[in-house]
Amino acid sequence: MAGRDPYLLTPGPITTSARTKQAMLHDWGSRDQEIIEATRRIGDALLAIAGAEKDHVCIPMQGSGTFAVEAALGTLIPREGPKGSKALVLINGAYGRRMAKILGVMGRPCATFETAEDTPPSAAEVDGILGGDGEISHVLCVHCETTSGIANPLAEIAKVVADHKRSLIIDAMSSFGALPLNASEVQFDAVVASSNKCLEGVPGIGFVIARRSVMEAAAGNAHSLSLDLYEQWRAMEANGQCGQWRFTPPTHVIKAFEAALDQFDGEGGRAERYRRYAENRDILISGMREMGFETFLPDSSQAPIIVTFLMPADPNFDFDVFYDGLKTRGFVIYPGKLTGRQTFRMGCIGHLAAAEMNAAVEAVRDTITAMGVKSGAAA
Amino acid sequence: MAGRDPYLLTPGPITTSARTKQAMLHDWGSRDQEIIEATRRIGDALLAIAGAEKDHVCIPMQGSGTFAVEAALGTLIPREGPKGSKALVLINGAYGRRMAKILGVMGRPCATFETAEDTPPSAAEVDGILGGDGEISHVLCVHCETTSGIANPLAEIAKVVADHKRSLIIDAMSSFGALPLNASEVQFDAVVASSNKCLEGVPGIGFVIARRSVMEAAAGNAHSLSLDLYEQWRAMEANGQCGQWRFTPPTHVIKAFEAALDQFDGEGGRAERYRRYAENRDILISGMREMGFETFLPDSSQAPIIVTFLMPADPNFDFDVFYDGLKTRGFVIYPGKLTGRQTFRMGCIGHLAAAEMNAAVEAVRDTITAMGVKSGAAA
Repeated sequence: MAGRDPYLLTPGPITTSARTKQAMLHDWGSRDQEIIEATRRIGDALLAIAGAEKDHVCIPMQGSGTFAVEAALGTLIPREGPKGSKALVLINGAYGRRMAKILGVMGRPCATFETAEDTPPSAAEVDGILGGDGEISHVLCVHCETTSGIANPLAEIAKVVADHKRSLIIDAMSSFGALPLNASEVQFDAVVASSNKCLEGVPGIGFVIARRSVMEAAAGNAHSLSLDLYEQWRAMEANGQCGQWRFTPPTHVIKAFEAALDQFDGEGGRAERYRRYAENRDILISGMREMGFETFLPDSSQAPIIVTFLMPADPNFDFDVFYDGLKTRGFVIYPGKLTGRQTFRMGCIGHLAAAEMNAAVEAVRDTITAMGVKSGAAA
Repeated sequence: MAGRDPYLLTPGPITTSARTKQAMLHDWGSRDQEIIEATRRIGDALLAIAGAEKDHVCIPMQGSGTFAVEAALGTLIPREGPKGSKALVLINGAYGRRMAKILGVMGRPCATFETAEDTPPSAAEVDGILGGDGEISHVLCVHCETTSGIANPLAEIAKVVADHKRSLIIDAMSSFGALPLNASEVQFDAVVASSNKCLEGVPGIGFVIARRSVMEAAAGNAHSLSLDLYEQWRAMEANGQCGQWRFTPPTHVIKAFEAALDQFDGEGGRAERYRRYAENRDILISGMREMGFETFLPDSSQAPIIVTFLMPADPNFDFDVFYDGLKTRGFVIYPGKLTGRQTFRMGCIGHLAAAEMNAAVEAVRDTITAMGVKSGAAA
């Protein structure tokens, strides 16, 4: 065993710093001034990361990232009817598909445009669809599709959506805080993400950065009391008491998130986080390629978030043995999630840097050597 | 200042033990075996507390307690239509009203029976309503209404509901684990509660203990993907991998809850927790009465969860000064929530016992002395 907690090379929850976890060693009431202030500081920090202080508001939501996505879709896309809307979901993985499923459960009109899991939708394709369907009011796009690790061309798509005067809602769950995304360059109605990915907090809250004018028009849209983003926002801003939650907040998760964002800032913000994660990815990919492993994606669309590797053809390779061997050596990896191919995934995010990624590559080398695997090459 | 973290005399989040908080000092992946096993152990422990191992299943849900209530109502009460149902909500405070509001947002048929905030609904009244309205399929009852601290006569109501062959859904948010509630004595389709009340975990998950046969018939009822209790349950039980969450779970909150439930068991289970909380309540009420303070509820309906006190008439009494004085002395109390009267509340739950409650009474005495308040008597 590695003599320490395993490092999480996963798409999140990820490895957090000791300081982030230690922030949870107290108790607070729901309406404690410390929680109100932490909530406010978190909101301000998130708006600043997105360059969205001017026209947007940040609304946190209890639960996993999917809860925040559902709250955004349910609240920001009006229901069917006279003022009804139709969403176009761009799909190249499980999280795009999930947005379409959420709309289906809510009974909201929805069109989809699906590309292969290694293929980003192009701005030209989106342009064509929007030109041909005037009913589409909202475009829903996953920034980095964690299914494969692909970075979708958000800026180009956002431009086309804006040219057609439609609204853009971005699932930036696994990219926010690392990949570039700034309201001054990318026009969006909402960006959704969570505490436990690139911002390196613990899991338990998501958040939506939403255009204020859109929020102001969103009363009564939601299909749910708990996931009503409008009411969550009104409660937060009530009595100038910005920062008070409607229902019991996960107080410890909030304090950990506040500590994580403080470290984010101290480390140098988004640009530095991107640099560190890109270095993590590069160490991982080049080390794995030395052993013959092959990435699913071409380097051009590989985000520094999570890397999908093809399952090796060597008959001595067994994923469960590989997984356990790495865990024993102190690294937790992740199964693949592609529809058609056998793969596994290794994350580049979390409180990890070059030393840990080099150690991860060494652990892979030790593990496949012990397994008698000569090469990581796929069939 | 008290030289320690303030004790939370609130309706939850409450003061947790150091051991519970220290359980959060690690990181885990969503599909980590430790999280799967903790989830399973939590479910087993909760079913045992409710004596519901035989016919019920336990399904945890991310978010605050309200998320779990909404998930239960949305999933267990069929939608309007041929197989549609109608719920009767018993209301004597904010949490009963909230259940009616959830049903309203979801567009589910709903009748209400409201009594004054100091008045429990009687079994005879419920009997009359059910006798007169054959369309009512479900009765929704809050066990301890935290608004006032009142204990509603659950066992009697449950008997009437069962006699009429209707379904009972219980919001036991603030009572579960302390007040008696056993499936062998109280017939229910679902009980909803959360991690951060009498079970003394940190906030971030709720849970529903639901009758297995009802769950099996609940596919497709839910109005929401995230709050679909049926799909949450199916995912948990898939591949015999009982304990795997559908969407990212709040891993740290889960591990804290597991630790809290282990301590619950070690302390002597529900009966001992009830005894400790009842002692806390009795120390608080008798100490406060010595200073002239008056409780809102008669002792006969006062649960050992939270006590509502009438606002004193003494012109020197100012609630904000009182609140701050107590906080400085290491105790956080809670504002009132009644619709008609000025009150404040003090909780009896959390990792606190006689010594802390005696100290709380002394802190009140010191505070009102410093304020020049002669008596806590109401007008």
